[in-house]
Amino acid sequence: MANAKGYAAESANSPLAPISFDRREPRPDDVSIDIDYCGVCHTDIHFAQNDWGVSQFPVVPGHEIIGRVTAVGPEVKSYKVGDMVGVGCMVDSCRSCSSCESGLEQYCAEGMTGTYNGVDRHDGSITYGGYSDKVVVSERFVVKVPEKLDPAAAAPILCAGITTYSPLRHYGVKAGDKVGVIGMGGLGHMGVKFAKALGAEVTIFTRSESKVSEAKKQGADHVVISTDKNQMKAVRETFDFMLDTIPVQHDVNPYLNSLKVDGAHILVGLLDPIEPAVQAGALVGKRRVLAGSLIGGMPETQEVLDFCAKHDITCDVEMLDIKNINEAYERMKKGDVKYRFVIDMNTLKNG
Amino acid sequence: MANAKGYAAESANSPLAPISFDRREPRPDDVSIDIDYCGVCHTDIHFAQNDWGVSQFPVVPGHEIIGRVTAVGPEVKSYKVGDMVGVGCMVDSCRSCSSCESGLEQYCAEGMTGTYNGVDRHDGSITYGGYSDKVVVSERFVVKVPEKLDPAAAAPILCAGITTYSPLRHYGVKAGDKVGVIGMGGLGHMGVKFAKALGAEVTIFTRSESKVSEAKKQGADHVVISTDKNQMKAVRETFDFMLDTIPVQHDVNPYLNSLKVDGAHILVGLLDPIEPAVQAGALVGKRRVLAGSLIGGMPETQEVLDFCAKHDITCDVEMLDIKNINEAYERMKKGDVKYRFVIDMNTLKNG
Ligand SMILES: [Zn+2]
Ligand SMILES: [Zn+2]
Ligand SMILES: [Zn+2]
Ligand SMILES: [Zn+2]
Repeated sequence: MANAKGYAAESANSPLAPISFDRREPRPDDVSIDIDYCGVCHTDIHFAQNDWGVSQFPVVPGHEIIGRVTAVGPEVKSYKVGDMVGVGCMVDSCRSCSSCESGLEQYCAEGMTGTYNGVDRHDGSITYGGYSDKVVVSERFVVKVPEKLDPAAAAPILCAGITTYSPLRHYGVKAGDKVGVIGMGGLGHMGVKFAKALGAEVTIFTRSESKVSEAKKQGADHVVISTDKNQMKAVRETFDFMLDTIPVQHDVNPYLNSLKVDGAHILVGLLDPIEPAVQAGALVGKRRVLAGSLIGGMPETQEVLDFCAKHDITCDVEMLDIKNINEAYERMKKGDVKYRFVIDMNTLKNG
Repeated sequence: MANAKGYAAESANSPLAPISFDRREPRPDDVSIDIDYCGVCHTDIHFAQNDWGVSQFPVVPGHEIIGRVTAVGPEVKSYKVGDMVGVGCMVDSCRSCSSCESGLEQYCAEGMTGTYNGVDRHDGSITYGGYSDKVVVSERFVVKVPEKLDPAAAAPILCAGITTYSPLRHYGVKAGDKVGVIGMGGLGHMGVKFAKALGAEVTIFTRSESKVSEAKKQGADHVVISTDKNQMKAVRETFDFMLDTIPVQHDVNPYLNSLKVDGAHILVGLLDPIEPAVQAGALVGKRRVLAGSLIGGMPETQEVLDFCAKHDITCDVEMLDIKNINEAYERMKKGDVKYRFVIDMNTLKNG
C-alpha cells in the first residue's frame, strides 16, 4: 500500500529521514486530511530520541497539524471536503469514562491515544504523526480552524496554545488579575498572549537580563529577572496566578511566595520530581495551590482556536523546509527559535 | 497587678508550672472572659519547648478556649455578660487588608496576632493563652458557643475543628464525594466527623492494622492501610479530596495517585519541605491540586460551631486536671490520647 509519505526516526540515534508508510482505510467516522503545516514541539524530539524509553520505531512525530479535508466517512457530521481543520496531541480515547464524557479526553481513564507513538484502539497499529502528507482521524478528534487564522501560525495552537490556554481558563483568569508567566519559549509566549487577551496584567519571569526587551515585545506588562533576589522580593504575595512552562527541574518556592492568598501555581511543562522540595509552609500559610495541567480536551481545543480568531492571536513561527528538520532540532535544543518551527508540508509534497 | 493566674513554661526545658500575670485593662471593644475549658494542641508543646525558635518566655499556651463573658466594653455589640464564648488561635489582625476584609484574618497581610506568643498590636506586650483563669479579647476575635454544645468537648473545635472544617468547605466537599483522611489524631478524627456530616463517603488512611477498628468507630466508611501497596493500588484514582493531617514529613505521592482527575490533596498539618519530592507528573497528568490550608477566619469559626451544634458534633476528649499538664504532654508525644486533652479550668481556680 504505502499510501503516505513523511519523515521518521528509525531509531533513537538516527536523524529523521523520508519514509513511506500506510495510513489506514478511513472508517465511517473518519476525516481524511491533506496536511499543509505541522508545528514542531519539544515532545517530538523526546520521542525521536527515545528520551522516555517508550518510543516505538519508526517514529513519525508531529501533533500540531493543520490541513484540508479531502474525504469524510458516512457518519461524519461536522466536516466536509475542503474544510480547514486541525489535529492536536490525541486522536482517540475510550470515549465513555467520566473524563471523556466531560470533554476532558486528555485525562481519559484508559489513557488517550497519542497522535503519534500511540496504539490504535481498533487495530492495534502504532499511530504516525503530522510530519507527513496526510492523516486519517476520527471526527471527534478533529477541530475546525477558522479561515481567518493564518494556518501556518495557527498550527502550534494545537499543542503549545491549548496547553497554556486551558489552565488560564480552568482557574478563571480574568480582567485585572495579575498573572506571572515563567519561561519564554513556545508555551510561555502563547501564555502571555492569552493572559493579555483575558485582560490580565502579565509579568514574564526570565533568568536573564538579555531577554527583557524581547519579553516586552511579547506584550508583557512587566519583566522580573528571577535570579535577582531583590526583584523577586519586590513581587512577594502579588500574583493571582503563575503559569510555569519550564520543562526541567527548578525551584518553585520563590514563585509560590510571589502568590497572593489563594494564588495558584500551575505546572504545564514539568513531569519530573519537584526538586528542590516544595515548602509546605508556603502552601499552608496562604492557602496557595500547586497544580498541573495537561493540554486540553477537544471542546476546549475548538474553543481556543475560536478565541484566537476573535482576538487575532497566532503563534510567532519560523517556517521550516522538512529537509531541515534535523538542523531545527539542534537549534531547538539550544533554545534558538522564536518561538516555534512550523513545517511547510509542501516541501515534502514537492521534495 | 497580677490579676490572672495560669500555667506557663519559663524556658524551653522547664516543665509548665503555675504563674501569676497581668491581663490587660479591657479596651472599649474588649470582651472579658472567665475560662472554663482549654484544649491542648500539639502547637502548645512546640511553643513550650521552643521547637521553632520563636518562643518568648514565659509561654502560657492554649488556643482552644471556652468560657463565660464577665464584662464587655462600651463598643461591644454582640456579647453580653453570661454568654458562652470561644477564642481560637488568633486574637487580632490588621483588620484592613483584603484578607481581613474577607474574613480571612488568618491570612492577614501583616500577620495575625497569635492567642499566645503573639505581640499585641496596641501595647507591644506578649499575648498569653488559655491555660489560665481569664482572658481579655477584642470582640471581633470572639465567637459565640451554642449552649447546646458540651463546652468541654467543644473547645478543640476552635483549632482542630476549624482547621479541618475550613478546607472541606473551601473545596466544596458535598454529598457523595469520596474523601480520604490521612492521620487519626485530633485533626483527623474531626475531619472524619465533618466529612461525614457533609455527606461524603469517608476513608481513613492509617499506617497500622491495629487502628482499623478504632477508625471504623470514628465513623469511617472504609479504612486503608497506607503501608500496604495492594490496598493503595486498589484505591488509585478514586478520591475527590484528601485531607492530610500528618504534621511530619511523609510521601504524598501515593495519596496524589489516589485522587481522581481534578482531585485535591490538602495539607493542614505539615509545614516542612515536602520530601520525598512531589512527582510533577502526578499533578499534570490528572490536573490534580496540592494545596494547604491554615485554621479558618472568624466568620468561618463561628460557622463551624453552629455546624457542630446542628449536626451534634463535638471532639472526643479526655478531661485533664491542669496539674497533670506535663504528664499529658508526654502522653501526647507518644500519640496516647483519644483524641484531645481538654483542661478543666476549675482545677486551676480551685487548685
Ligand atoms: Zn506538543
Ligand atoms: Zn475515557
Ligand atoms: Zn492548635
Ligand atoms: Zn489584615
